[in-house]
Amino acid sequence: FFHLGSKPGTSPKVCVLQDDKVYIAPSGVQKERIEPSHIFVLPYPQAEPSPLTDRIYLRRPKLNLKESACSPLFWNAFTIRNAGSCIHTHSQNAVMATLLWEKEKMFRISHQMIKGVRIGGHGPTLSYLDTLEVPIIDNTPNEEDLKDSMKKAMEKYPNAAGILVLRQGIYVWADDWQKAKTQTEAKSLMISVSREIGVKMKLAGLPTVLDE
Amino acid sequence: FFHLGSKPGTSPKVCVLQDDKVYIAPSGVQKERIEPSHIFVLPYPQAEPSPLTDRIYLRRPKLNLKESACSPLFWNAFTIRNAGSCIHTHSQNAVMATLLWEKEKMFRISHQMIKGVRIGGHGPTLSYLDTLEVPIIDNTPNEEDLKDSMKKAMEKYPNAAGILVLRQGIYVWADDWQKAKTQTEAKSLMISVSREIGVKMKLAGLPTVLDE
Amino acid sequence: FFHLGSKPGTSPKVCVLQDDKVYIAPSGVQKERIEPSHIFVLPYPQAEPSPLTDRIYLRRPKLNLKESACSPLFWNAFTIRNAGSCIHTHSQNAVMATLLWEKEKMFRISHQMIKGVRIGGHGPTLSYLDTLEVPIIDNTPNEEDLKDSMKKAMEKYPNAAGILVLRQGIYVWADDWQKAKTQTEAKSLMISVSREIGVKMKLAGLPTVLDE
Amino acid sequence: FFHLGSKPGTSPKVCVLQDDKVYIAPSGVQKERIEPSHIFVLPYPQAEPSPLTDRIYLRRPKLNLKESACSPLFWNAFTIRNAGSCIHTHSQNAVMATLLWEKEKMFRISHQMIKGVRIGGHGPTLSYLDTLEVPIIDNTPNEEDLKDSMKKAMEKYPNAAGILVLRQGIYVWADDWQKAKTQTEAKSLMISVSREIGVKMKLAGLPTVLDE
Repeated sequence: FFHLGSKPGTSPKVCVLQDDKVYIAPSGVQKERIEPSHIFVLPYPQAEPSPLTDRIYLRRPKLNLKESACSPLFWNAFTIRNAGSCIHTHSQNAVMATLLWEKEKMFRISHQMIKGVRIGGHGPTLSYLDTLEVPIIDNTPNEEDLKDSMKKAMEKYPNAAGILVLRQGIYVWADDWQKAKTQTEAKSLMISVSREIGVKMKLAGLPTVLDE
Repeated sequence: FFHLGSKPGTSPKVCVLQDDKVYIAPSGVQKERIEPSHIFVLPYPQAEPSPLTDRIYLRRPKLNLKESACSPLFWNAFTIRNAGSCIHTHSQNAVMATLLWEKEKMFRISHQMIKGVRIGGHGPTLSYLDTLEVPIIDNTPNEEDLKDSMKKAMEKYPNAAGILVLRQGIYVWADDWQKAKTQTEAKSLMISVSREIGVKMKLAGLPTVLDE
Repeated sequence: FFHLGSKPGTSPKVCVLQDDKVYIAPSGVQKERIEPSHIFVLPYPQAEPSPLTDRIYLRRPKLNLKESACSPLFWNAFTIRNAGSCIHTHSQNAVMATLLWEKEKMFRISHQMIKGVRIGGHGPTLSYLDTLEVPIIDNTPNEEDLKDSMKKAMEKYPNAAGILVLRQGIYVWADDWQKAKTQTEAKSLMISVSREIGVKMKLAGLPTVLDE
Repeated sequence: FFHLGSKPGTSPKVCVLQDDKVYIAPSGVQKERIEPSHIFVLPYPQAEPSPLTDRIYLRRPKLNLKESACSPLFWNAFTIRNAGSCIHTHSQNAVMATLLWEKEKMFRISHQMIKGVRIGGHGPTLSYLDTLEVPIIDNTPNEEDLKDSMKKAMEKYPNAAGILVLRQGIYVWADDWQKAKTQTEAKSLMISVSREIGVKMKLAGLPTVLDE
């Protein structure tokens, strides 16, 4: 599961919640080299992890590995959206989208192939006629510090299927751990493709949302 | 045959008519994971399938898979153009082409390497001096509902070797099932390359058709 | 040798002259599927092949394959430049370059990493301070008909290490059959990279040649 | 180690200093074909190699291979920055960056994911709030002749984690030979990604440095 397709070195970070256990990949290990023994396993639920407090582990890697800094943000997806998995990438189209839609603080695109994206990540799927909206929050020097602003954005925009971080990347989640990989991959991909075409359209001077 | 080259997750959908049998790939299964037992097999000819009426199958996958929503559109290629295979993709260049040529409702490019494209998909091949024309029809929330407008466009433009769908993708067919894969691949590719270079030319401010 | 790296379906066409024998790949066979038995073998020298006259073969494929239409153009490289191999591609950057430099009928770039390109394809190598010049000739519906204009351009510009064909592609040759593959690949690549960066620079409004 | 990921034919050049030995790849051999016996091994320290004077070798390839012309530049990284490895690439984004930031003689980008880049290549890591600065030096016909201007730039900008060469490429080093590959790869990649996004931002008319 931790080997999602992306360019080497720009590995997406992935987190899975399954049977009251949270599986988190280590930070700074290249995707291709992650082995099962590198994965952090935490009990769930537990008090929300913060960069400052102790966390309870069911298993930690024996190697001196650092847990992904995204953990608190993945926790948002679990507690606020009841997600079964969450994925984080630094894709260039995500970064470009946050820059091109910086003023609006919201990436918006309509009339595209977004059928597989679910409202809020767990509701009914979007239709061709709907508008995909992904809020953009400001970045901070440390990823952990995004926890609160991500939470606020998720609560303010309950229909959002992901959260973009200015100049940094995107968080996308899926609600169903049984199909977590396929769903997360597919949603992540669909949003990613929308973003890519959105960036191309914006740069070509085309409106990305109709009827405005 | 169902493993045509394209990016994972953006699988083209493929349909083949061979010896009075139609083979259709399932929807929602990633190209790389399609197995022979996943393929729907239908007798041909039969009353045109619609999303509402029953269809007759020679074989259905045992898994609870959904037939590709493109089936009625593939049927157009079989009945109107006597095609032996049909392919549908959501390529970004197709989407960009429909947007950049939206007003004209027709993608047009001339003086390019389009030698392998056949008039109407089954006639003589185009020459370097000819103009490749691919009509653009409006999209609908459900792919099945494109059947009638695609049919009209195919009848209005009998020379067209494919049909573009606004903001969605393209349908391309080949007439000869024996060489279906190579032909469909080659044509699809040639039209795709024309589209890609067409999009680049349009964005660079270059005319895509000479002598106008 | 006939498996140079490029995208499937957009195979470069390759021709090799070695020990008084010319090896030509068939037309219409995808690069990945070419087998040794598909290769045409012709004695060299022989009267220049034309599309109309008979050609002498040492070996023809048993399958009903068509010789690449580029043969007469490859012959130019052998007879005019004493080349040991020639390569032809339809790369999009080649096509874009011919369009962006259409008026000048000459692609020109200087102060780039063109050290490996030899003057005329067989002379001393270019320096960083030199200007790479590749003439652009008009395209014709049939590739065979390019033979004379390509010949004229090669004679008019004896320093040119390749010939671009408007809206179509490029021919590049190497003089030394022993190292034909590496040389042709390297040169082709170097010219290709120059072309790609040249196209990017032109589109970004940057001059591609200094001191003008 | 000498098989870093990049496109065939555009191989990065790599040099490693380990246990008082310098390992240098040969010039003109494609990355995929480099074998251990092709590597030059030199004792370190020794008088700085110049293109004119003799160099002392612990081992030279038996084949008639030429040492990479970058050796004197790699030496800069070893002597001035105490680096354990150095990498040189001709990436197109590096070339484009030198052209788009030619006037400033300095590629600058801030508020991007540059956390892994170390100040001067060996100091503390940059923060999201910092500005990544890479000086741009003029190119020369022979790479060896860059030695002095590269040295000057490294001394003038002790915080720079790499040196760009106008219209040519970039040099990046890592300080720790034990982790040389990962570090150099990661840094090279991070700077490369910054450069790529920087080029995209510049072309889209977006400022690459905030608060100016």
